[in-house]
Amino acid sequence: MSKKIKVEIVEKIFEANNQLAKTNRDILDSAGCYGLNIMASPGAGKTSVILHTIQQLKPAMKIGVIEGDTAPVTIDADKIVEIGCPAIQINTGGDCHLDASMLNAGFQKMPISTLDVLIVENVGNLICPAAFSLGTHANVMISSVPEGDDKPYKYPNIYRNLDVLILNKIDLLPYVDFSLNTFMDGLKLLNPGLIVFQLSCKTSVGVPEWGQWLSAQIRKHFPEKWN
Amino acid sequence: MSKKIKVEIVEKIFEANNQLAKTNRDILDSAGCYGLNIMASPGAGKTSVILHTIQQLKPAMKIGVIEGDTAPVTIDADKIVEIGCPAIQINTGGDCHLDASMLNAGFQKMPISTLDVLIVENVGNLICPAAFSLGTHANVMISSVPEGDDKPYKYPNIYRNLDVLILNKIDLLPYVDFSLNTFMDGLKLLNPGLIVFQLSCKTSVGVPEWGQWLSAQIRKHFPEKWN
Repeated sequence: MSKKIKVEIVEKIFEANNQLAKTNRDILDSAGCYGLNIMASPGAGKTSVILHTIQQLKPAMKIGVIEGDTAPVTIDADKIVEIGCPAIQINTGGDCHLDASMLNAGFQKMPISTLDVLIVENVGNLICPAAFSLGTHANVMISSVPEGDDKPYKYPNIYRNLDVLILNKIDLLPYVDFSLNTFMDGLKLLNPGLIVFQLSCKTSVGVPEWGQWLSAQIRKHFPEKWN
Repeated sequence: MSKKIKVEIVEKIFEANNQLAKTNRDILDSAGCYGLNIMASPGAGKTSVILHTIQQLKPAMKIGVIEGDTAPVTIDADKIVEIGCPAIQINTGGDCHLDASMLNAGFQKMPISTLDVLIVENVGNLICPAAFSLGTHANVMISSVPEGDDKPYKYPNIYRNLDVLILNKIDLLPYVDFSLNTFMDGLKLLNPGLIVFQLSCKTSVGVPEWGQWLSAQIRKHFPEKWN
């Protein structure tokens, strides 16, 4: 395949994805449902952060979760259902990211008109999820301390399009070589003004601050619903 | 694009890649150079393990490193050069894995006929690198304790085609919820008999055992060269 044809195919794929992402956003807005796209490396703690987020929002809001997985195991979805939230799994069949069409298909199984918040857990990967907009209201990245402070420099694309970053596992700071300054300098370079929460799912430090901020975002986006 | 055409294109891509991987293997064999393909999540410690591996093999063997990166930063390659080894970077231009053609292009810049060992550091990703054989002699996976014990269950494909697995950061076992039994059971399920080394780049525990095993593999593969 010539390089030109390959570039054209890739551009068409992105164009079609962006179009469908807009449709997804319209569907979410019409339903009054705030959508979050959670991205991270494998093992950064996406599911743990989602479980804590649900506990923060739960008293006031109805939350549903769509789990993106490359394999048909339902480990993450089971954990969400266990704490009483609706969850479905999208099995990408080996693909390394979710795209707007997969989320659109998920809407058929997840009754978003009955929800206030839809949390989408993307496939664990720092590369391709950055290229496929889903149409959610916020792109959230979860980084974790043991991954190292150089990740923004090495995987810059995903950091550029974030609305908020959660630095998880800060309880491990005493045991690993991680310079908060180096990490934050990388974020400033790629995404000046990015909102950052430092938290630990183990000690719950930082969890209330993240929950309060998110709750305020949701209420601000749907003022008629929440005021 | 119809699903059938998409499947056909994907099959052709894999077929062409496998063909070129065989060519790469022949080139490595003719040069008497043992090739390693190092795969892992972002932040599992690929570069740290490579630096320790070089220290183990260095007295007896000449080692070169090819670094696969999605961005043009040379953080990892610089660390290798600092300890006196030749290293080049392949920038995938955003692609989430190395493939056989990228490695083949790398051979033009890295004089493998002067090397005993070529270490290829793949892009940090647990999904796509599993699908693209490079033609190296061994597929090595680096998992790390803070990623969690459920990773084999969630990213099964990459564990199926491994020759050896290094469980890194075992110094963090006391501080995180990680069941060695759960992790090892997952490996047994996917890849019975897989060779596993538990090590820590921080304390150097397990590093000599890994170095000795690898050295023996290399000598076994090229008996005329090493006996």
